[in-house]
Amino acid sequence: MNSGPIRLTGGSHTALPPATAARITDGFWAARRRTNAEVSIPQGPLKLEEAGNLANLRAAADGDGTFRGDFQFQDTDVHKWLEAASWQLADQPENAELAQHIDALTKLLAAAQDEDGYLQTYYQVAHPELRWQELGWGHELYCAGHLVQAAVAHHRATGRSELLFVAERFAEHIDATFGPDKAIDGVCGHPEIETALVELYRETGERRWLDLAAYFVDRRGSGVLSAGVDRGHDRDPGEAYWQDHVPVRAARNVAGHAVRQLYLLAGATDLAAETGDPELRAAMVRLWDAMVWTKTYVTGGVGSRHEGEAFGDPYELPADRAYAETCAAIASIQWSWRMALLAGEAKYSDLIERTLFNGFLSGVGLDGDSWLYVNPLQVREEYDAGPGDQTARRTPWFRCACCPPNVMRLLASLPHYVASGDAEGLQLHQYATGVYAAGDGVVRVGTAYPWDGRITVTVEEAPAGRDWTLSLRIPSWCAEFTTSAADGEAPSEIVPGWLRVRRRWSPGDTFTLDLDLTARLTRPDPRVDAVRGCVAVERGPLVHCLEGVDQRPDVCLDDVTLSYGSSLTVVQEPELLGGVTVVTAEGRRRSDGSAVRLTAVPYYAWANRREGAMRVWIPES
Amino acid sequence: MNSGPIRLTGGSHTALPPATAARITDGFWAARRRTNAEVSIPQGPLKLEEAGNLANLRAAADGDGTFRGDFQFQDTDVHKWLEAASWQLADQPENAELAQHIDALTKLLAAAQDEDGYLQTYYQVAHPELRWQELGWGHELYCAGHLVQAAVAHHRATGRSELLFVAERFAEHIDATFGPDKAIDGVCGHPEIETALVELYRETGERRWLDLAAYFVDRRGSGVLSAGVDRGHDRDPGEAYWQDHVPVRAARNVAGHAVRQLYLLAGATDLAAETGDPELRAAMVRLWDAMVWTKTYVTGGVGSRHEGEAFGDPYELPADRAYAETCAAIASIQWSWRMALLAGEAKYSDLIERTLFNGFLSGVGLDGDSWLYVNPLQVREEYDAGPGDQTARRTPWFRCACCPPNVMRLLASLPHYVASGDAEGLQLHQYATGVYAAGDGVVRVGTAYPWDGRITVTVEEAPAGRDWTLSLRIPSWCAEFTTSAADGEAPSEIVPGWLRVRRRWSPGDTFTLDLDLTARLTRPDPRVDAVRGCVAVERGPLVHCLEGVDQRPDVCLDDVTLSYGSSLTVVQEPELLGGVTVVTAEGRRRSDGSAVRLTAVPYYAWANRREGAMRVWIPES
Repeated sequence: MNSGPIRLTGGSHTALPPATAARITDGFWAARRRTNAEVSIPQGPLKLEEAGNLANLRAAADGDGTFRGDFQFQDTDVHKWLEAASWQLADQPENAELAQHIDALTKLLAAAQDEDGYLQTYYQVAHPELRWQELGWGHELYCAGHLVQAAVAHHRATGRSELLFVAERFAEHIDATFGPDKAIDGVCGHPEIETALVELYRETGERRWLDLAAYFVDRRGSGVLSAGVDRGHDRDPGEAYWQDHVPVRAARNVAGHAVRQLYLLAGATDLAAETGDPELRAAMVRLWDAMVWTKTYVTGGVGSRHEGEAFGDPYELPADRAYAETCAAIASIQWSWRMALLAGEAKYSDLIERTLFNGFLSGVGLDGDSWLYVNPLQVREEYDAGPGDQTARRTPWFRCACCPPNVMRLLASLPHYVASGDAEGLQLHQYATGVYAAGDGVVRVGTAYPWDGRITVTVEEAPAGRDWTLSLRIPSWCAEFTTSAADGEAPSEIVPGWLRVRRRWSPGDTFTLDLDLTARLTRPDPRVDAVRGCVAVERGPLVHCLEGVDQRPDVCLDDVTLSYGSSLTVVQEPELLGGVTVVTAEGRRRSDGSAVRLTAVPYYAWANRREGAMRVWIPES
Repeated sequence: MNSGPIRLTGGSHTALPPATAARITDGFWAARRRTNAEVSIPQGPLKLEEAGNLANLRAAADGDGTFRGDFQFQDTDVHKWLEAASWQLADQPENAELAQHIDALTKLLAAAQDEDGYLQTYYQVAHPELRWQELGWGHELYCAGHLVQAAVAHHRATGRSELLFVAERFAEHIDATFGPDKAIDGVCGHPEIETALVELYRETGERRWLDLAAYFVDRRGSGVLSAGVDRGHDRDPGEAYWQDHVPVRAARNVAGHAVRQLYLLAGATDLAAETGDPELRAAMVRLWDAMVWTKTYVTGGVGSRHEGEAFGDPYELPADRAYAETCAAIASIQWSWRMALLAGEAKYSDLIERTLFNGFLSGVGLDGDSWLYVNPLQVREEYDAGPGDQTARRTPWFRCACCPPNVMRLLASLPHYVASGDAEGLQLHQYATGVYAAGDGVVRVGTAYPWDGRITVTVEEAPAGRDWTLSLRIPSWCAEFTTSAADGEAPSEIVPGWLRVRRRWSPGDTFTLDLDLTARLTRPDPRVDAVRGCVAVERGPLVHCLEGVDQRPDVCLDDVTLSYGSSLTVVQEPELLGGVTVVTAEGRRRSDGSAVRLTAVPYYAWANRREGAMRVWIPES
């Protein structure tokens, strides 16, 4: 049985089941996860205390106090942190301090919950008379969804039911309240409950949660929320903002608020996986392709517009004003993983890799304690940060603190995104040193990826006496690769995106894949107006960028150009940015044509030193 | 004495005085102004009634009723319409219906005014307890400023004082309330009062208004408004939003909310003109150059960002997400005209021309009854309008209806932007058929500009017995021109931007300037990342654009390219879009390289037919 974020049922209509057990033990992601475990997650309770989130829960529990914070959904910071902490505890069951924090917060949530199961401190403390009255901005089902996800994670990680019980009580209250013939026939302005309810169904086996998820998915999209402007909001954000502009089955492209869109699509994909609904599945396949081909940055970032935190038009992908919210990258990864399991195609994990190594990871500082809400691909020398959370400068926490605990929960659950498998074989979707059990096998992976392209897979368990397939994803960026097996037997075939090695395996057998990591220059799709005539430096899964701090002091990033034919030099920099490989190239100043050496660091590591200019896309000479 | 928006005092420290009388009698602008007079302005009272603005005034007058509309500054729609109507009445003193409307509104405003002079219906009707308590979002001084401008226009146009009396009473109340040692030592979140108070000083001769303007200009810029978030607003827009981030004297570039920035700079320029303050003047010159060189679209539009309606970073000039609010174009023209008079350089009127014919005029439909709030330079085939007022689709009116009456007042007062003059000569800044009296002369201009480059100036009055200089602006886009005088005597010299003809003139003497209107392709500044590798079609002062409706049905505007060396064909289209000249060229499809004929219409005329794609910047083949 899978112990990660997705646990399929016996009746799931998916191509691939996720790994049953997964551990990342060393290498690139282990280091990032260590910082997550040692810095980010431990700081959570303190940040939540400072920001008033815990005070709100106490106020709800005591029936006395004032609400703190600016948003109705403050509780979700707590829920997401609890989810992250639970995944982390599964990795470190010996971490007593973490377990204590989780217990304390679980007790606090249980105490804050109303008799009838309702639990959202904003309406409990500040506006009890408005409960379920502001479906557009209220975020009540959104909060419930994150609570459910936290509870499922807690249950899977610890086997304990206290938080699951709280979540089920809230879900029961919702089920009693929402429906075609119930008190409210409507949906929430912020999708999230859908994917959570499917997972609650998977965890408990109770069919009612799947039915409720199906109701929410299909009720949405016909102006249900068109009442529009709730109290205290001076602008109607439009139906696409809260994903109420079109039924998800009828949509032709992703649109509107990116995180809301992607959480909804994750839920709809979960639903399609459990029901086998072919129409819904076809819509998911169509929308994912449309997103990738028309509305995704080279970094994997999505959601181009600051205004409405929205997907823009097709090919509207500005580098400087890219919103590309960290949460949207996370949501994209979550949806794509569900698509990978549903359809079994490598392209979904290809996007996950691109997003993980670039547009997601840029969201958290190397220190694990500073964050980016937005992840632009260009910052000019004279950058005006603009107000609020939408700055391209690292920030210790946010007034709207959705991203940090979201990063924590993804990093904490990351091992579960690496592998899948069934009786026929095991698929490696990502390359990270560790041990992965899936289907009938267990493999151990060793690699210095993404700095080195060699991936060594040791089969620890495999079905005896019959053929079994080890599948390794061949990244779409990879032009050449070689393979070898310790015993010389590596009869492999390529099916789109996968290298499949089918043979009899004995414990201890190794198979080695060498991906060519030659650095390369990438030209954008010519339909992307904003970066026409530019090139980007890439190496393996890493998008690189020029940061002002790495260039000679007399170089202005607004003035550099690079020829598409330039030769690129790869340099190991073990002391730089926690240890990175940089790419250098001979560029030219546009202003006077003079040559200038350019140094490109991995994009994920930008904005960790002094403030300055940055650019991914470099004008061609 | 000048009868337009700016009337200098005897002590003004300006290079040029504006015309004393000006009439546009025929040609391009006469047609636009006729639509303004016959459609736009007459609809004003109806629109203001429908939107609740007049009901608000009645509620304030009656001391009974509820406030209608979403914004504190609803009254300014009335004030700006009154200003427009007053300028229009100056042109058409026989228009009894218009006079009647003006009288009725003037009476209504007088009745709505409180005993102490205060007049803003939002606070009078909805929140009397919050008067002067919300300087950030309250817009109270902003409303006062527009009231003063309307009153000055009304006084200049009609010689009547009723509205001026209302405005003065409000100004007295403000003067009694605001100041270093008074009840409030602060400024308004939306500049506007500054330029209005200087004009009130010019109109009444009362020095206190100039001093109050100086106080507001210099008090601002050090976080005076940093209290930040007022009631009912869930985001802190940042200090630059309300122009409180830097003292205007210290600023290095325009920044923040574009309209607020430009209204403030208009006021600061007025102040510099009246005080002769060299530091303030130098700041204005510096900021204007910075705006033009780093933050202005080829259309003259300014304010790149939807978020915060703000100037973006230098060279952040996206075509698709250009905000380029119609009001910002108007504010740019108003400021530039003040700079033209202050400094006497042609470049200021050069920008006015570019803005008038392109980024301003696009804001009003050819019907005079449909509007654009934002003026992008690209709309893709699959355009998602987004919510609210920020759509690139023409709209009959806006919930935030700042733009329409602003267009009306500029068109109604447009003749006053054409000429200036003093004892030494007369300067023609713009080319529009009409009669202009300035300084010691009167000239009659005849031209089919911008369709034809010939401008014939007939001197109707000039100083007898001495040399006198007729100056004509040579637009910066103009590569070649010829001149001739009916009597053969045209001894001219070029000083930057001006053709100066100094001689003795007799009534009836004519001078002809022929500007070469050969259509041209323009490459953008290479620092503008968003349109790198593109060209724009221009002819004379007109920027052209491709609109989907003008192309063959099998042409997709997202797929066309044009070579920089393409030959351009100019075609008269008297039946198209009210009569325009279009430019055609042989382009290529990017997708298959096939040739395709492209037709470019003047940008100002776009979005007047069926919805579809549009682009100004065309990728180079």
